[in-house]
Amino acid sequence: MNDPLVSIIMGSDSDLPVMKAACEILQEFQIPFETKIVSAHRTTPWMMEFCAELPNSATQVVIAGAGGAAHLPGMVASNTSLPVIGVPIKSSNSIDGWDSILSILQMPNGVPVATVALNAAKNAGLLAIRILAAHDHTIRTKMNRYREEMNEAVLEKNRKLEDKGFADYRK
Amino acid sequence: MNDPLVSIIMGSDSDLPVMKAACEILQEFQIPFETKIVSAHRTTPWMMEFCAELPNSATQVVIAGAGGAAHLPGMVASNTSLPVIGVPIKSSNSIDGWDSILSILQMPNGVPVATVALNAAKNAGLLAIRILAAHDHTIRTKMNRYREEMNEAVLEKNRKLEDKGFADYRK
Amino acid sequence: MNDPLVSIIMGSDSDLPVMKAACEILQEFQIPFETKIVSAHRTTPWMMEFCAELPNSATQVVIAGAGGAAHLPGMVASNTSLPVIGVPIKSSNSIDGWDSILSILQMPNGVPVATVALNAAKNAGLLAIRILAAHDHTIRTKMNRYREEMNEAVLEKNRKLEDKGFADYRK
Amino acid sequence: MNDPLVSIIMGSDSDLPVMKAACEILQEFQIPFETKIVSAHRTTPWMMEFCAELPNSATQVVIAGAGGAAHLPGMVASNTSLPVIGVPIKSSNSIDGWDSILSILQMPNGVPVATVALNAAKNAGLLAIRILAAHDHTIRTKMNRYREEMNEAVLEKNRKLEDKGFADYRK
Amino acid sequence: MNDPLVSIIMGSDSDLPVMKAACEILQEFQIPFETKIVSAHRTTPWMMEFCAELPNSATQVVIAGAGGAAHLPGMVASNTSLPVIGVPIKSSNSIDGWDSILSILQMPNGVPVATVALNAAKNAGLLAIRILAAHDHTIRTKMNRYREEMNEAVLEKNRKLEDKGFADYRK
Amino acid sequence: MNDPLVSIIMGSDSDLPVMKAACEILQEFQIPFETKIVSAHRTTPWMMEFCAELPNSATQVVIAGAGGAAHLPGMVASNTSLPVIGVPIKSSNSIDGWDSILSILQMPNGVPVATVALNAAKNAGLLAIRILAAHDHTIRTKMNRYREEMNEAVLEKNRKLEDKGFADYRK
Amino acid sequence: MNDPLVSIIMGSDSDLPVMKAACEILQEFQIPFETKIVSAHRTTPWMMEFCAELPNSATQVVIAGAGGAAHLPGMVASNTSLPVIGVPIKSSNSIDGWDSILSILQMPNGVPVATVALNAAKNAGLLAIRILAAHDHTIRTKMNRYREEMNEAVLEKNRKLEDKGFADYRK
Amino acid sequence: MNDPLVSIIMGSDSDLPVMKAACEILQEFQIPFETKIVSAHRTTPWMMEFCAELPNSATQVVIAGAGGAAHLPGMVASNTSLPVIGVPIKSSNSIDGWDSILSILQMPNGVPVATVALNAAKNAGLLAIRILAAHDHTIRTKMNRYREEMNEAVLEKNRKLEDKGFADYRK
Repeated sequence: MNDPLVSIIMGSDSDLPVMKAACEILQEFQIPFETKIVSAHRTTPWMMEFCAELPNSATQVVIAGAGGAAHLPGMVASNTSLPVIGVPIKSSNSIDGWDSILSILQMPNGVPVATVALNAAKNAGLLAIRILAAHDHTIRTKMNRYREEMNEAVLEKNRKLEDKGFADYRK
Repeated sequence: MNDPLVSIIMGSDSDLPVMKAACEILQEFQIPFETKIVSAHRTTPWMMEFCAELPNSATQVVIAGAGGAAHLPGMVASNTSLPVIGVPIKSSNSIDGWDSILSILQMPNGVPVATVALNAAKNAGLLAIRILAAHDHTIRTKMNRYREEMNEAVLEKNRKLEDKGFADYRK
Repeated sequence: MNDPLVSIIMGSDSDLPVMKAACEILQEFQIPFETKIVSAHRTTPWMMEFCAELPNSATQVVIAGAGGAAHLPGMVASNTSLPVIGVPIKSSNSIDGWDSILSILQMPNGVPVATVALNAAKNAGLLAIRILAAHDHTIRTKMNRYREEMNEAVLEKNRKLEDKGFADYRK
Repeated sequence: MNDPLVSIIMGSDSDLPVMKAACEILQEFQIPFETKIVSAHRTTPWMMEFCAELPNSATQVVIAGAGGAAHLPGMVASNTSLPVIGVPIKSSNSIDGWDSILSILQMPNGVPVATVALNAAKNAGLLAIRILAAHDHTIRTKMNRYREEMNEAVLEKNRKLEDKGFADYRK
Repeated sequence: MNDPLVSIIMGSDSDLPVMKAACEILQEFQIPFETKIVSAHRTTPWMMEFCAELPNSATQVVIAGAGGAAHLPGMVASNTSLPVIGVPIKSSNSIDGWDSILSILQMPNGVPVATVALNAAKNAGLLAIRILAAHDHTIRTKMNRYREEMNEAVLEKNRKLEDKGFADYRK
Repeated sequence: MNDPLVSIIMGSDSDLPVMKAACEILQEFQIPFETKIVSAHRTTPWMMEFCAELPNSATQVVIAGAGGAAHLPGMVASNTSLPVIGVPIKSSNSIDGWDSILSILQMPNGVPVATVALNAAKNAGLLAIRILAAHDHTIRTKMNRYREEMNEAVLEKNRKLEDKGFADYRK
Repeated sequence: MNDPLVSIIMGSDSDLPVMKAACEILQEFQIPFETKIVSAHRTTPWMMEFCAELPNSATQVVIAGAGGAAHLPGMVASNTSLPVIGVPIKSSNSIDGWDSILSILQMPNGVPVATVALNAAKNAGLLAIRILAAHDHTIRTKMNRYREEMNEAVLEKNRKLEDKGFADYRK
Repeated sequence: MNDPLVSIIMGSDSDLPVMKAACEILQEFQIPFETKIVSAHRTTPWMMEFCAELPNSATQVVIAGAGGAAHLPGMVASNTSLPVIGVPIKSSNSIDGWDSILSILQMPNGVPVATVALNAAKNAGLLAIRILAAHDHTIRTKMNRYREEMNEAVLEKNRKLEDKGFADYRK
């Protein structure tokens, strides 16, 4: 595989079931990526080292997922000039996900994090691909096709619904 | 000025006092940009036309600000393959900004919006710059310097605080 | 069946289990209706086409259900002069339904959406019937009877409770 | 003036500064309407009398505004077969408007209220007009024109913005 | 049984599993009570009749439980001079109970409802008993003993915990 | 003045501007009352002493107002058998009043507090009067008249509105 | 075992499944502690007695857990000069835990409670250990090692993830 | 002045107006302290250096204040074994303070932050003093006296209220 263009990190291996949707969509688009467990709280020096290595790598986008008081996306964004996408994760003792959303979204002026919806690792992957696509026509063409396929899939479902009627649709 | 790399749109001219912070930071970084008023609700055909023109333009990132039931960022993201940054705006009858945050952030799978903090148009601009910087070393160097200056400014304030003491700091 | 007077649309076929309650109550009132899957995000052109056809149809009311950042009701209301009823749906990664409620309810001045309670597709159907009944005495008579039957059903339950007592009511 | 087609009621005269926006838009569309103060809590018998008179009147839509534990829209909807539009009002000791929104929106199955945004009396008026327009071509033509004018107004502002630039727009 | 001193009403028989805790505690205190299903929305005339009969009855306190847009407690309080205790019920499509809490609690000046915690029908019963106890020494003595028994039960559990230790307490 | 029937306590003298509405309505009904500052946190022994004296006094109802983490109403309810009415106060650093509402409302089983709306000291007074009225016909007659006067006042305003029209009402 | 340095109290034995995590981490650090059931509401005198005994004991930190309108941590903090750690517990009828969080966190000036995350009894134990460690080098050394082990555990998981890949990590 | 026992840090000099209340109460108790501006986001290396120096200093407690996505308290707690007190600050674009509260409070297992109320820097100072007092009898005596004075102040206000009456209290 080529050098990773996207780096997917998460605060804990318990975030993996959510975060793997980012990996899968990147695989589907054939974008090389890497996955790492980096905890802002339990491994701050390792997080700093990770950030320090980014300029020497091929990485162009970082995706960071975390739950609760989710500091990882913001702390990585603080220590890199790359765009950082934050995935708020609804962890076990989360307060309905509000804690991770607000911890990631409400960054102070100067240090942005590109926040996606709660648990929306797939959208984080797609956003990373759009960022790469901004200057890569091959990827942009794939993204155009991906959007076209979503469009087709809805139209297909609509035809099925018109065909079968609402009562028999799921049978 | 060169062809705009960033397109800054907003749902209403009442959003301009918030959104101009995005313009100003792009000016500071000497990134060419354009500003437009595009309402998802009042001018859907114009919004569709705007999206249709994007592939023919130099635009690499869209920044869209909107308040209340803020549909503009998500609707534009639905009709382009470019990365779209959403700025939730706390408008007059907003419910503390929750409405615009959730309308922008909670996009369904397939169509991501890179959401920033409430009213954080400056961070939207900085995020756009990071996206451009991902493959442009001149811009990335500027972003590195910008971050270094923020760092210096805090250290300078800290020296002042240690010097004057908390009671005299503001005098 | 006659030309549909009510058009029931939803953003995804996963909304059908909630939205079918609207279909069923319209069936009960013998109001002709149609059901379609129309995604604001994944099929914007199809949504625009749907709106453009409305003036040529018999449709007098649109019911639109959607979850998360629920833009469908507002976007359809933006592109028709018909009354649009919005049904906020509590989808899987929804934040307790707040996201869909606020995305549908908090429309800006100029473009109203008639919002009903979370998941309340049945009430959306009843509201559509009331709108039709506003100028159709046959339907209004049915609605009067429907309300009378609800009244009777509660009184019947009350008689049962007085009869059996609270401890034996459910036995 | 002709018999009112729309009845605008409110729980208190302190709601008038918000509710008059509904009156004004109806005036603009030349729809005859009436305004009344009807408190669900302080004048329940008067509210019941108001509801009982509705079938004998020309009224086709009721707009009801109320704040706090806002019971008026739901209670009137309970005692008429007409469509009832509810306007949640952010009153003085309201908890950011959540109380009136939820009291109006979350009606049980059987009794719908068409809820609009917080303080959105203008949109309530526009929704009433759309309901009337559903079977009145003159009104629908006016609503089409109204929407077209909104569209034009945004395009005009956009032209001004492109002309003057973001920095000089407000000067 | 004697004439009921407390009247326990609820909006629907689906509220009975929650509301029966109020019945049981009144039974335990040997306070005569009645239970009725009274829906503010589906049976407003029956609700008005219920209120009109209260001055002719022995009832001194009303307990009213309801969920969602819970109007019953406030509407009954509007039509009686008796103290009304409201029990917010977390019904199926409730938004975490916030809707029923705010609909009951946030009554306007002039018409108070004595609101208890979410689903806290037992506490509603105990509050009714305290109200009766305010001028009835027999009941007050029972309430004193009830509180003393709660105190004893905690002390007993504490002794058990000190005895067995935290690890073996539940074995 | 006679022995106080109602005891109005508050956690701090900064609560007095809100709580005096309770005093004034009791004065209007000529119910003897007392006012005290009792802080659960800063004067727990004084609070316990206050509770211990209640059985020896004429007091039949306690009204307790507090803001923030508002423990006073619940702690007093824990140490008396009298009904305790809690007034949540929106104090300066309150989080929109949610903290005081939830601290007062969400009492555990066994110890009820009769909670009224945010800052609703007047309603707390009226609830106390209803509790006294439950077994005092003179007070109940006054309360009936009070409710009748509220009814009249609304009807009067409604006549004025019908007379002057919405545009001239406030002139 | 030596005299307890930490006293762990809880409002009810139903809090024990959450609170035992505090006990276990103290055991792991070999810090002597005691556990008691102390209800602010049901056993106020016992709570006052508990506080009165603290100066005569070896206790240096109190950990108090409670749910709903959680008054125990604040009331104990009011009656001791020791640091009190509050654990908000998400009990059965809690409103997503907001009630216990706000009841514990939002203490008025003068009486602080050191609040930890929802259900975070383990962190309460660790905070107590840090407080003891502030002046005890043996404990501080243990805490340093504990933090180092957390760091190691994350790095180990990261090595496993790099080794196995995201798809095979959990197999 | 002696070596500081408490280190008060804040993310920005705009936090100083809130945080100085912590300084002032420490001055009142004659506890030596230092104040620094340390931004987790803008000066991560300086924050790491600050943490690394703590073991070589006399500091026994850290107080950290921050607003918005407030990462400073948690990040410092991650890199020290000392107890860290977090002060959530309601900054300008904060969402009513919820963002800073949840970012500080909801720390994951392993890294506790002792969170105090919104803007409650004074209580943070008092909590630090209690932590020092846990093993220092001179400080504990002062804290006992401080609590006694608060108690006296309330009793004094109560006497004034009983003396002047509620209507004349503020005159």
